[in-house]
Amino acid sequence: MADLNNFCLRQTCPVSGARVGELVTAHGLVPTPVFLPVGSQGTVKTLTPEEVKGIGLKMVLANTYHLYLRPGIEVVDRMGGLHKFMAWDGAILTDSGGYQVFSLAPLRRVSDEGVTFRSHIDGSEHFLTPELAIQYQEVLGADIIMVLDECSAYDDSFEKVQEAMVRTHQWAERCRKAQRRDDQTLYAIIQGGVFPQLRRQSAEYLTSLGFSGYAIGGLSVGEPKEVTLAMVEETAALLPGDKPRYLMGVGSPEDIVEGVARGIDIFDSALPTRVARNGALFTWQGRRNIRNAAFSRMEQSLVPDCDCYTCRTFSAAYLHHLFKSEELLAYRLATIHNLKFIHDLMNKIRSAILSGTFSAFKEGFRANYRPTDEQARFNQKQKWLKSRNRFK
Amino acid sequence: MADLNNFCLRQTCPVSGARVGELVTAHGLVPTPVFLPVGSQGTVKTLTPEEVKGIGLKMVLANTYHLYLRPGIEVVDRMGGLHKFMAWDGAILTDSGGYQVFSLAPLRRVSDEGVTFRSHIDGSEHFLTPELAIQYQEVLGADIIMVLDECSAYDDSFEKVQEAMVRTHQWAERCRKAQRRDDQTLYAIIQGGVFPQLRRQSAEYLTSLGFSGYAIGGLSVGEPKEVTLAMVEETAALLPGDKPRYLMGVGSPEDIVEGVARGIDIFDSALPTRVARNGALFTWQGRRNIRNAAFSRMEQSLVPDCDCYTCRTFSAAYLHHLFKSEELLAYRLATIHNLKFIHDLMNKIRSAILSGTFSAFKEGFRANYRPTDEQARFNQKQKWLKSRNRFK
Repeated sequence: MADLNNFCLRQTCPVSGARVGELVTAHGLVPTPVFLPVGSQGTVKTLTPEEVKGIGLKMVLANTYHLYLRPGIEVVDRMGGLHKFMAWDGAILTDSGGYQVFSLAPLRRVSDEGVTFRSHIDGSEHFLTPELAIQYQEVLGADIIMVLDECSAYDDSFEKVQEAMVRTHQWAERCRKAQRRDDQTLYAIIQGGVFPQLRRQSAEYLTSLGFSGYAIGGLSVGEPKEVTLAMVEETAALLPGDKPRYLMGVGSPEDIVEGVARGIDIFDSALPTRVARNGALFTWQGRRNIRNAAFSRMEQSLVPDCDCYTCRTFSAAYLHHLFKSEELLAYRLATIHNLKFIHDLMNKIRSAILSGTFSAFKEGFRANYRPTDEQARFNQKQKWLKSRNRFK
Repeated sequence: MADLNNFCLRQTCPVSGARVGELVTAHGLVPTPVFLPVGSQGTVKTLTPEEVKGIGLKMVLANTYHLYLRPGIEVVDRMGGLHKFMAWDGAILTDSGGYQVFSLAPLRRVSDEGVTFRSHIDGSEHFLTPELAIQYQEVLGADIIMVLDECSAYDDSFEKVQEAMVRTHQWAERCRKAQRRDDQTLYAIIQGGVFPQLRRQSAEYLTSLGFSGYAIGGLSVGEPKEVTLAMVEETAALLPGDKPRYLMGVGSPEDIVEGVARGIDIFDSALPTRVARNGALFTWQGRRNIRNAAFSRMEQSLVPDCDCYTCRTFSAAYLHHLFKSEELLAYRLATIHNLKFIHDLMNKIRSAILSGTFSAFKEGFRANYRPTDEQARFNQKQKWLKSRNRFK
């Protein structure tokens, strides 16, 4: 498969290694560093495609695992592919389903050939191989597609993580060979858990095969924040400078800033939209819970200088009222705000890198933004994953 | 209080008595017959004000009972009134809270002075009088406000219904006297249950007092459809021709057509938005459940000639997928479709009356539209009311 010239690197911060670039896709240019909102089931939760575009977002993530189980790859095919099905003419990246099989599906069995798993929706049994993961993603038709990988858990032993990594390498090669379409770019996923030696090995092996982009997988799964960042730093340093680098599953404002500082170009996470639906809204001082009584009489918007639709239109008191009344509009207005906040953050980051002031920007951001307690965040995510990880 | 010239009657169908007119409000002209979408808590469920306006709707209904309990009348006052609070610059009608006290609140006690009730949210005790109902509605600042009435149940005895009616009359007079603002129009509510004699008495008494408009209350609460229509016919015939007539709580397509044929100008109901969230979408042949497997591969929109945002943008298969996946966007897209359908129906009705073809329109509509089974509909509504009528 011809290696597409899918990434233009514009500028690199000489101090930190933070980068500004551009992804070139059949559905438009995507400036990097970029955050991809998650639309696993073919919809960024609560929003129409027009709203996603209105925020300024140019690329979204969808999920092969979810779409394969429902509505089924064949249905999306009949509807003319994923772009048409979800009425989104911007760029799309699909994850292969690897992470979801290992985090959502019960009763999975892995062999070199592939992975057998049960649907988290109805318990039905399915078999996924690297070849099928590519075939499905070619039908969905995203602009960037991902190899099938085996994800380790945070508490897995060195041997177990190593075994999963080796299998991920073999699967990456099979994915490359299975690729038929030449208008999609395929990214490899570097594994190796929290073991620097394995991360190095994985980066070296996969870059030697030559992919169009490189993702760092298997992080942000419960390990302490310093470990995540150390692994990112370790791995990113081994990746070719002219290819995009994608840190999977990371998306809090504070983590994005740190990731960019370590040379990451692409982020995705359900966090900004998930916490929005819980009433946690981003401000430049940290997250605020709009359900708090302090907002019940606040005539101003939550973030007065924010020009998202929500802050331009409604008082914090109204948003508070919608959340207390459990009105569906609440979840949507909060989602719009949080995605616009992240989008504004990415714009500020890009400007800072281009003007050579990224380090100062990062210090300023850290001085003001009080991150959410890590343990609280982890507990919340586990609770959320658990609530989903059952037959319906 | 000066009687505002708030209604211009444009044309009356000589055969049926169906009317075309215009409500004149401080927030714009509202062509009648008109359907008001329900936004009890200061939001038409799932929609932004822009979307409501985009559908073409010019007036919405909000509820004193709900807004009094949460966020509280005083909060809306601090935020500059209801229009500003919910960012809606079109017209608003507020119901007084009478119907909600008698349908939602547990443990109510009625006296001539007023009604004591417990909140359906937290069980707290409250006291509402005609004077307070007006005072609260003047603070909320709707364009049309309603008197406080006592609603009977469908199975109440003649004596009980009569007693409630007499009290409603006394309360209507007190509401008139309590009115201070001269930029809001006050409508009386005719009661009398399913007893023609009482309906006549109520219409005669209240019209003799001279209100700016007349609502028919206490119908669509479980009685058979023929009884509803007989009561509407009976009552409307006794109302002055130059004042608007409002049939409260009625809003299925088939009932609207019948109501218009009996001289009704204004309708409101949560039905179109409530059933939308259940996946029941209006077509010109009747309601369709989008969850039905028949729609899982339908490339066209549900109603191909519909130009609502939902039908213009998405296939029936996508909407089906969103409902099966319990995605929040589903409820919103269905709400947009159903409200646009009702809005289109009102436009067709007005055109037909103006061109002298309303009877033919009505017959054509009835020949195509298969109404939902009445008992099924009633059961569904009771189930819904029951699910709400508890402490949270």
